[in-house]
Amino acid sequence: MKTRAAVAVAAGKPLEIMEVDLDGPRAGEVLIEVKATGICHTDEFTLSGADPEGLFPAILGHEGAGIVVDVGPGVTSVKKGDHVIPLYTPECRSCPSCLSRKTNLCTAIRSTQGQGLMPDGTSRFSIGKDRIFHYMGCSTFANHTVLPEIAVAKVNPDAPFDMICYIGCGVTTGIGAVINTAKVEIGSTAAVFGLGGIGLNVIQGLRLAGADMIIGVDINNDKKEWGERFGMTHFVNPMEIEGDVVPYIVNLTKRGADQIGGADYTFDCTGNVKVMRQALECAHRGWGESIVIGVAGAGQEIATRPFQLVTGRTWKGTAFGGARGRTDVPKIVDWYMDGKIQIDPMITHKLTLDEINKGFDLMHAGESIRSVVVY
Amino acid sequence: MKTRAAVAVAAGKPLEIMEVDLDGPRAGEVLIEVKATGICHTDEFTLSGADPEGLFPAILGHEGAGIVVDVGPGVTSVKKGDHVIPLYTPECRSCPSCLSRKTNLCTAIRSTQGQGLMPDGTSRFSIGKDRIFHYMGCSTFANHTVLPEIAVAKVNPDAPFDMICYIGCGVTTGIGAVINTAKVEIGSTAAVFGLGGIGLNVIQGLRLAGADMIIGVDINNDKKEWGERFGMTHFVNPMEIEGDVVPYIVNLTKRGADQIGGADYTFDCTGNVKVMRQALECAHRGWGESIVIGVAGAGQEIATRPFQLVTGRTWKGTAFGGARGRTDVPKIVDWYMDGKIQIDPMITHKLTLDEINKGFDLMHAGESIRSVVVY
Repeated sequence: MKTRAAVAVAAGKPLEIMEVDLDGPRAGEVLIEVKATGICHTDEFTLSGADPEGLFPAILGHEGAGIVVDVGPGVTSVKKGDHVIPLYTPECRSCPSCLSRKTNLCTAIRSTQGQGLMPDGTSRFSIGKDRIFHYMGCSTFANHTVLPEIAVAKVNPDAPFDMICYIGCGVTTGIGAVINTAKVEIGSTAAVFGLGGIGLNVIQGLRLAGADMIIGVDINNDKKEWGERFGMTHFVNPMEIEGDVVPYIVNLTKRGADQIGGADYTFDCTGNVKVMRQALECAHRGWGESIVIGVAGAGQEIATRPFQLVTGRTWKGTAFGGARGRTDVPKIVDWYMDGKIQIDPMITHKLTLDEINKGFDLMHAGESIRSVVVY
Repeated sequence: MKTRAAVAVAAGKPLEIMEVDLDGPRAGEVLIEVKATGICHTDEFTLSGADPEGLFPAILGHEGAGIVVDVGPGVTSVKKGDHVIPLYTPECRSCPSCLSRKTNLCTAIRSTQGQGLMPDGTSRFSIGKDRIFHYMGCSTFANHTVLPEIAVAKVNPDAPFDMICYIGCGVTTGIGAVINTAKVEIGSTAAVFGLGGIGLNVIQGLRLAGADMIIGVDINNDKKEWGERFGMTHFVNPMEIEGDVVPYIVNLTKRGADQIGGADYTFDCTGNVKVMRQALECAHRGWGESIVIGVAGAGQEIATRPFQLVTGRTWKGTAFGGARGRTDVPKIVDWYMDGKIQIDPMITHKLTLDEINKGFDLMHAGESIRSVVVY
């Protein structure tokens, strides 16, 4: 079949809207009509050429929502008409990772996904004889895409595509980091570095988890109002305080009998390795945990004195918020439908596919929390 | 009163055996007759002058066992005649850290202890008018010492001092890192870097915890026999394998259906920041935890790519094995008495106080696992 797509023809070039050829689903695969997709920094990271594993030409996009329109042989968990969210982290429920109960990082199709291919080692996308690569196993910058059955989450059909697409990456990453990775307890103190889309979702995850102090840290004062909208209790602009942000937050978190200070949980949502260090070092002595969410540039390294760990701080990371896609994503959609979490205010721009490059421009200009393409 | 002590008169100088003045216990303090003390690398670190917080003159030593010979006003938890192990990590049971249930790093007397003083801000040791500093709140290189009541663990009086003194630091640090910090489960795979006294105790902790694979890593082949004596199942000498030790251990730990590899738990017992990185990076993708136990040189830093954390590895540290001194140390003494853990083979040398500098020489020459001074 033919479908319309935004093709990343080469690193650093704008996406090109064109008709592409799409093969139908093979065994264990499903064909999806994508109804909406967010534009995420990870798409930008790859499109810019900064991603050393980026492949071109490719159809980017990994934050979508849509409807199953066809299924290949052997598919049993979804059927035509089901509403689904594509999963760049699949959930096969039978690999050693899925069975470990300790990680969401399913390894069933990891190698082919990293090569921009379906599990059988081929691509479904092409233009004439030229193969086009899949991206993160999703390729949602196309009106139709093919995914492995294990890489779609069936969700509430009443949920609006142009909102829940964001659960395909940003919402789940932020909320999941709080709930699945940090396992934040009621009454905790927390600091969130970087109040972009991920940071705001960390904040609403912290509110959901019942944190007492939710400190947002950003060098842009406009983010104060954004943070407060989702549950932030304190705002810190590191450019406007005296001295370093680490002792500042340590002081801010001294409560009651505890005069040591430091946040119980800290989250880096910047991708800046220097900020990751600050986030670790303002975690509480003895038990503070710092979670790296942001993706750093290629080759960049985090560093600290090991004393920070020996005195009880833990350094962790999270991918897709530690969420198991088919198990946890439908629950997050339900939380949205039940009003437990907000998404609507974060979707700052809606675009047509033809306007998709504008979405990247808005991101570069810092003018969007999330731009969504609606097909 | 007078007591005999090995005094660290200045950085880099041998200890000097001399008579020193010791004031009796004040309120909340106890006077101990030290019956035995181990010589630990941390004593050496401070004596060498490498410890930026080292104070001189001081009475070093922090790995002791002895008998309570006098108590100050208000002391209720121990009495004259009790057998005790001094605790450089006290357990007050009422500070925010003790009450957190999340850390053993009691903060009740942290600031004065760091200044080489008792909680009231004075020292009990002197020679004439010259004050001598306490060390790590213990100062076990003296035949008598004074400690806060919260810094002694009452233990089984049948246990031999010249063995259980080692529980005052090395044994508890190694076993505790496995049990309290990593919380290793039955059937786990583990890699231990550095097979000195701490590493061997980590190994016997892993055996106690029921680990399946216990990989010891050391550049000295003589350690193979040592490791095997305490439960090591595989030995790796990084100098004698092809390529880097990280992929080597990742391969070694591929088991059954799991072809990703990596150890469930890794432990650095070297203090070498490059080895700390290796230990992290050979932890299993998705869930591997790496525990820093070794103390690095002043100003040294650990580093890695944040991708290591984002893909599910956790970097932790431990001090005193995460053990609460008054609660957990008596249990470890009982485990020794019950034959659940071994100590005797690790005590390679017994010395008199007059021979204490020989203990440091043996350490420098790598000829001892643990030298113990018996008073």
